[in-house]
Amino acid sequence: MAFNRFQDFLGGLVSRQRALFSSNNAPSIDELLADLMGNTGEVSAIVAARELLDMYAALDEEGKLAIFTQMEQNYNAEPASVKLAYDNFAATPNSANLNGLYRTAEPRRLELLRRLNQTPDATHDLVAMRTDLLGLLKEHPELEAVDENFVHLFRSWFSRGFLLLENINWSTSAAILERIIRYEAVHAIKDWKDLRSRIDPPNRRCFAFFHPALTDEPLIFVEVALGTDIPGSINSILEDNVDDVIDTTNFTTATFYSISNCQPGLKNITFGNFLIKQVVQELQSEFPSIKNFVTLSPVPGFNRWLQSTDDSESDTLTTLKTEFADAENSPDETNGKPDILRKLVFNYLAQARRDKYPADPVARFHLGNGAMLHNVHTDADHSEKGLQQAYGCMVNYLYDLRYIERNHELYVAEGNVGYSDKLKSLLIKS
Amino acid sequence: MAFNRFQDFLGGLVSRQRALFSSNNAPSIDELLADLMGNTGEVSAIVAARELLDMYAALDEEGKLAIFTQMEQNYNAEPASVKLAYDNFAATPNSANLNGLYRTAEPRRLELLRRLNQTPDATHDLVAMRTDLLGLLKEHPELEAVDENFVHLFRSWFSRGFLLLENINWSTSAAILERIIRYEAVHAIKDWKDLRSRIDPPNRRCFAFFHPALTDEPLIFVEVALGTDIPGSINSILEDNVDDVIDTTNFTTATFYSISNCQPGLKNITFGNFLIKQVVQELQSEFPSIKNFVTLSPVPGFNRWLQSTDDSESDTLTTLKTEFADAENSPDETNGKPDILRKLVFNYLAQARRDKYPADPVARFHLGNGAMLHNVHTDADHSEKGLQQAYGCMVNYLYDLRYIERNHELYVAEGNVGYSDKLKSLLIKS
Amino acid sequence: MAFNRFQDFLGGLVSRQRALFSSNNAPSIDELLADLMGNTGEVSAIVAARELLDMYAALDEEGKLAIFTQMEQNYNAEPASVKLAYDNFAATPNSANLNGLYRTAEPRRLELLRRLNQTPDATHDLVAMRTDLLGLLKEHPELEAVDENFVHLFRSWFSRGFLLLENINWSTSAAILERIIRYEAVHAIKDWKDLRSRIDPPNRRCFAFFHPALTDEPLIFVEVALGTDIPGSINSILEDNVDDVIDTTNFTTATFYSISNCQPGLKNITFGNFLIKQVVQELQSEFPSIKNFVTLSPVPGFNRWLQSTDDSESDTLTTLKTEFADAENSPDETNGKPDILRKLVFNYLAQARRDKYPADPVARFHLGNGAMLHNVHTDADHSEKGLQQAYGCMVNYLYDLRYIERNHELYVAEGNVGYSDKLKSLLIKS
Amino acid sequence: MAFNRFQDFLGGLVSRQRALFSSNNAPSIDELLADLMGNTGEVSAIVAARELLDMYAALDEEGKLAIFTQMEQNYNAEPASVKLAYDNFAATPNSANLNGLYRTAEPRRLELLRRLNQTPDATHDLVAMRTDLLGLLKEHPELEAVDENFVHLFRSWFSRGFLLLENINWSTSAAILERIIRYEAVHAIKDWKDLRSRIDPPNRRCFAFFHPALTDEPLIFVEVALGTDIPGSINSILEDNVDDVIDTTNFTTATFYSISNCQPGLKNITFGNFLIKQVVQELQSEFPSIKNFVTLSPVPGFNRWLQSTDDSESDTLTTLKTEFADAENSPDETNGKPDILRKLVFNYLAQARRDKYPADPVARFHLGNGAMLHNVHTDADHSEKGLQQAYGCMVNYLYDLRYIERNHELYVAEGNVGYSDKLKSLLIKS
Repeated sequence: MAFNRFQDFLGGLVSRQRALFSSNNAPSIDELLADLMGNTGEVSAIVAARELLDMYAALDEEGKLAIFTQMEQNYNAEPASVKLAYDNFAATPNSANLNGLYRTAEPRRLELLRRLNQTPDATHDLVAMRTDLLGLLKEHPELEAVDENFVHLFRSWFSRGFLLLENINWSTSAAILERIIRYEAVHAIKDWKDLRSRIDPPNRRCFAFFHPALTDEPLIFVEVALGTDIPGSINSILEDNVDDVIDTTNFTTATFYSISNCQPGLKNITFGNFLIKQVVQELQSEFPSIKNFVTLSPVPGFNRWLQSTDDSESDTLTTLKTEFADAENSPDETNGKPDILRKLVFNYLAQARRDKYPADPVARFHLGNGAMLHNVHTDADHSEKGLQQAYGCMVNYLYDLRYIERNHELYVAEGNVGYSDKLKSLLIKS
Repeated sequence: MAFNRFQDFLGGLVSRQRALFSSNNAPSIDELLADLMGNTGEVSAIVAARELLDMYAALDEEGKLAIFTQMEQNYNAEPASVKLAYDNFAATPNSANLNGLYRTAEPRRLELLRRLNQTPDATHDLVAMRTDLLGLLKEHPELEAVDENFVHLFRSWFSRGFLLLENINWSTSAAILERIIRYEAVHAIKDWKDLRSRIDPPNRRCFAFFHPALTDEPLIFVEVALGTDIPGSINSILEDNVDDVIDTTNFTTATFYSISNCQPGLKNITFGNFLIKQVVQELQSEFPSIKNFVTLSPVPGFNRWLQSTDDSESDTLTTLKTEFADAENSPDETNGKPDILRKLVFNYLAQARRDKYPADPVARFHLGNGAMLHNVHTDADHSEKGLQQAYGCMVNYLYDLRYIERNHELYVAEGNVGYSDKLKSLLIKS
Repeated sequence: MAFNRFQDFLGGLVSRQRALFSSNNAPSIDELLADLMGNTGEVSAIVAARELLDMYAALDEEGKLAIFTQMEQNYNAEPASVKLAYDNFAATPNSANLNGLYRTAEPRRLELLRRLNQTPDATHDLVAMRTDLLGLLKEHPELEAVDENFVHLFRSWFSRGFLLLENINWSTSAAILERIIRYEAVHAIKDWKDLRSRIDPPNRRCFAFFHPALTDEPLIFVEVALGTDIPGSINSILEDNVDDVIDTTNFTTATFYSISNCQPGLKNITFGNFLIKQVVQELQSEFPSIKNFVTLSPVPGFNRWLQSTDDSESDTLTTLKTEFADAENSPDETNGKPDILRKLVFNYLAQARRDKYPADPVARFHLGNGAMLHNVHTDADHSEKGLQQAYGCMVNYLYDLRYIERNHELYVAEGNVGYSDKLKSLLIKS
Repeated sequence: MAFNRFQDFLGGLVSRQRALFSSNNAPSIDELLADLMGNTGEVSAIVAARELLDMYAALDEEGKLAIFTQMEQNYNAEPASVKLAYDNFAATPNSANLNGLYRTAEPRRLELLRRLNQTPDATHDLVAMRTDLLGLLKEHPELEAVDENFVHLFRSWFSRGFLLLENINWSTSAAILERIIRYEAVHAIKDWKDLRSRIDPPNRRCFAFFHPALTDEPLIFVEVALGTDIPGSINSILEDNVDDVIDTTNFTTATFYSISNCQPGLKNITFGNFLIKQVVQELQSEFPSIKNFVTLSPVPGFNRWLQSTDDSESDTLTTLKTEFADAENSPDETNGKPDILRKLVFNYLAQARRDKYPADPVARFHLGNGAMLHNVHTDADHSEKGLQQAYGCMVNYLYDLRYIERNHELYVAEGNVGYSDKLKSLLIKS
């Protein structure tokens, strides 16, 4: 079918209009903002939006800060109008008056962002803009009001209903593959050859979510190794195996060994919670012989927790932490260190909490998706990061399709952490 | 590329979940609403949304009215919370407190509609729901508050940036073509043979806008005749010409002779204002020899205006109206009726206003797009509707690419109606 | 990906060249043939081919016959050269000399057809040309030499490796669907509404083979009904059931109830022998619950066989034929006619032969594909054709995937006819 | 549309059949050849073909030679049958008997190759097989008979009508891009970064022909630089310019600076002669401002010609060659060497012949396509290859669309070499 994107048409229109004006004196940012928010024709507003986004991108940090400050200060609502709308509602609290108050209390920032987003390829620029904003929040907490408005709109623009799951492989475009190399956040990809060893062999798969609002930009992706065992170490997975001869007919296990979020500007706009479930379905349909779907995951919060103290912690646990510290400092390698470590990691994941949910961010992700904790491995990741975060430990989370929805509901309701029977003996009662 | 729609995955998930529960006692609408708006797991909420939309669709008009009334009454905001948020803002009218008020004053209807829209294929159902709602507004004006919330969300969901222009022809799917037959609103399409004579011959084109939120559903479409003259009558265009031999190398004129909006549930969510401009670009690229882009348009408001009286109207115009009425009632066919009629139609389009813009809806559309009035034809449409609305008159609007943006800006700013020099002599000064 | 067909480029080139020459005196067919077969530039030859094919298409039957006769008479090989090449080979029968003879003995008709086929869209025209030729063969048997050359080239051009199986449904283009209506050869499709009832409901499927050499032209298609029983009559299948509510989760049976070859010009270029096997695979993947794949097929050769006599026929069979004739002529409806009929049909299919294979063409197709005869139904097809060909009888052939390859090999080797155990008792020993 | 490739279906079928037999004793090559050429079922033959091709690929050079020798010796035709067919034809030299002789004299090698090609992905393997064969011809000239049969079939299988022109850019799949890197034969591509600088910037383009018989394999590709001048040196074109800001609105010139054939196994199956013309059309449609289409081409045969002597050469030319040799050996850099060189290169291209056509292979390609020689540049290519082949000279061939067909026809008929007026003065009359 011969589809033509409206956005491309509009892009051409904007280019031609800008070319007409390029010889004139360029308008200032304030003039452009006035054009954008005023009552001019639609094409003028779209051209102004494009100029503004390009000007913004060329600013230094100070200039960008000035823009955000202006948005925070000058794009609110008229207090007098808000008062009037509120008084109406307070007098007659019906649905029409509530609507009226809602309309009037809308920060003009939202309309500003909406109008900026009318110009072609704007969403990409606005996501980059929010990335900048997030970097400024610590020093300028008053800008959180602006960030809240970004989030409000991004939630709506990035409607999950348009997500597409793409199989990333050696037939994928270089434009996308180059970003996969750049965005891999767990086990870095060294070069195109390393990339190929992750996506091309018949026992490797990679899947990414895309959204039409961000062309060619993966939102989140997962790398998968297919095989006949549940792996207890990342090392063999990352070795180059492009030339191995692989029998694809009797895979029994799919291991999700790396999940990377790609868009810092979309922080808190979640896409990942169904990713693994959809990938499981794809794999099941391609390989009916696969029965086990597990992760091989890092435990990024373990060391921080180990070093911390918590009054509510049981004595047994505190003792164990001390034992581990002693073992670490002892020159003797033959003591029971791995056993202590494994027990500590398990109890960290099963018991350490932030609010009512697990403290570890990777655990929150998988348990929240309905997985359960399946196994804990020491000596599983020799990378610097792996040693630093969790003394080389990694864990398997198990996605058992029979229980996945029930686990998810229990987790949401009670923060319940499911784990396999064989781990039960490691539990330290509090 | 192997893309998999997330929505299809979710659809399968929902079907399987519903199959599990189908044997149980079905929950009531109120129980489902509680599930949907509560803190259950995500899958439960998505399943509840699907059940609710299906239940709604099966209701009679009374049942649907009850649902809308419930939405109007029970899905507002907590007055006490609103008061608190407002007091905060009144005390310290900063951006954070404005955000807070905006959040608190949001009618819960919006969240309800958003959650309904999480389930696969929901948008289609919600557009149908609004079609129902629009039919109830006259008798139940309080539901306009609900409609306002629908519009608020639809504006965001149907982002213009995702529009796709499709060339509709004999290679288009039957699923879409069947809707073209059904939705044609200006010159009815009798059957598949008639359809083919509109889209298959080399001197006919049809283009439609689609949006990924509504699969297979055209939003608006335009039918085009290519030729060597600016036509003054619709009759020859609508004749079957499938077997004519046509020389495609020297077309000079593209005539847009029918534009139909397809989705009543998207009233006030406009998509059409760039349609013709994008089609003009497509045609120019395919046929560089085409220089004239015109419409052959009805004048739907003419007769109504003719029968009405308006104190601000000039005496000359009133006299002309009377002359025409006399000519109509006279048995003599040889009088100057066509000339009077032509003059009246021109002055109606150029001078009759609603607010500051032209009274005629078709004129508003084309002039607002930047076209100008090019010619007025009597004896141009023998259909019952054409005779009833405008005594068989039709007009050409001209899309002259050199002036289109300027015309649009002047129209937006001042309601300016541009017309060709040769029409100037018909103008009655007021 | 942005692919551009070379053929479209060439088509534009040819059009522009022809436009340049159109005002001149048109060359004759003989001049064009000289251009085509001569040593001119490539573009000239391609233009000449297009002219020739268009001229041919405009000829009446006599004119076409003259062309074929010219091809038969004048496009052979130079006997002197053939003699020389043969003498070389006879003297030294090595591979080089065999190649030389093969090259020299090639009828120039092959080169003529190859050069005609260089022009865009030529294959379609050459298939139509052969359709004409087939119609002339009976009266002009000498043209069979020409037909043999067509077949030789078509076998190569329509390489099976490029076949595509398309799922034909309501999303298919009107251009293709219109041809499905036209080409249905077993149970005629009345109109677009009837078509929709065959391809749109969830318990109906239609699949067609396409080949890139013939754009938009199905080669062969099969219609399938999904359900829970092996049907014994065509009537319920052909009823309109668009509005039935259908549970798609527990289909157990797919019935292939209509298979149509679409291209008479491709006679003896077979595409169908893997069609059903590939469709079976598609259906299994979509509906794992389907276990039975059967046909509901006509018995087109039965009546002809019944009326014929064959000396090698057993006495029992001859007696049975006579019994049936008597029953037919008897006014008594309550006699054992259906039983006799069923027995006769079974024995016709199992025993009547042409060469070593079954006499019935539909039986040859399915048994050759590896199916076996599963059941025989009387009173199964009330259409005029069904009554005329086989007294309303139809049969089920069963595609049992476990035995399909073995059946096929046995059939190819020995003409073996497999049938189900329950039919065994009907067999008349010869 | 949901198309399914028949070839993929067949591939699955073959895999499953082979898995069934894998445990058994593997058949020998001779047994497989017997299966393939025998009268077994179709699936058996397809499986045998797959086995044979895989076995062949695993052979060493000696093994491969044995196969080809077997094909040359044992797959000819039965001399007695050939004699019979010839005698028939000699007695009655009509079209039927010619067909009969042609059929009988067909070397069985052709049928062998056709049957091998029935198995999925066979064409790729057969092209590789011919690459091997070409390497053996010099030492084993008797195998040329086998090569001739390969060519005969490849000409038919790689029908030009299926060619697709793909725009190669950063959105192209890694699988294809990797081959572009590998196959670039004129100016080597160093790595992925170098590749990107050739295909991603807005002033660079790359186009390749593909054929459905060879998935993901480019047949021939051309690299293009867009700019405002006709370049006289390759150096600036090959510099990395990814980060330059480029104004794409006023390109006037497209320079084809590298053309590479990709498939040695398809030697003498030409695809390239329309490549540049189709690319010109693509570029014209995208950039109407481009008026000049030129190449920047090497002169690969120059040095060889310079070192050779030719009795038919004019005295003037011989003298000039000697002058150049003297200048080369002289330590003085300031003499007229560039002028002599330029004159020699021009006269080499314009006058040196092989048969009636230019001796230089690149000149044959472009002049045969209808281009003319536009300019000769010294000091244009500093690479080792450029210096070795033509002392750093390069030339522009001009594709002037007004004359391209006429040039082509003149070239084909008379070997005519067109050149620009400004080169005229360099011509040495013979």
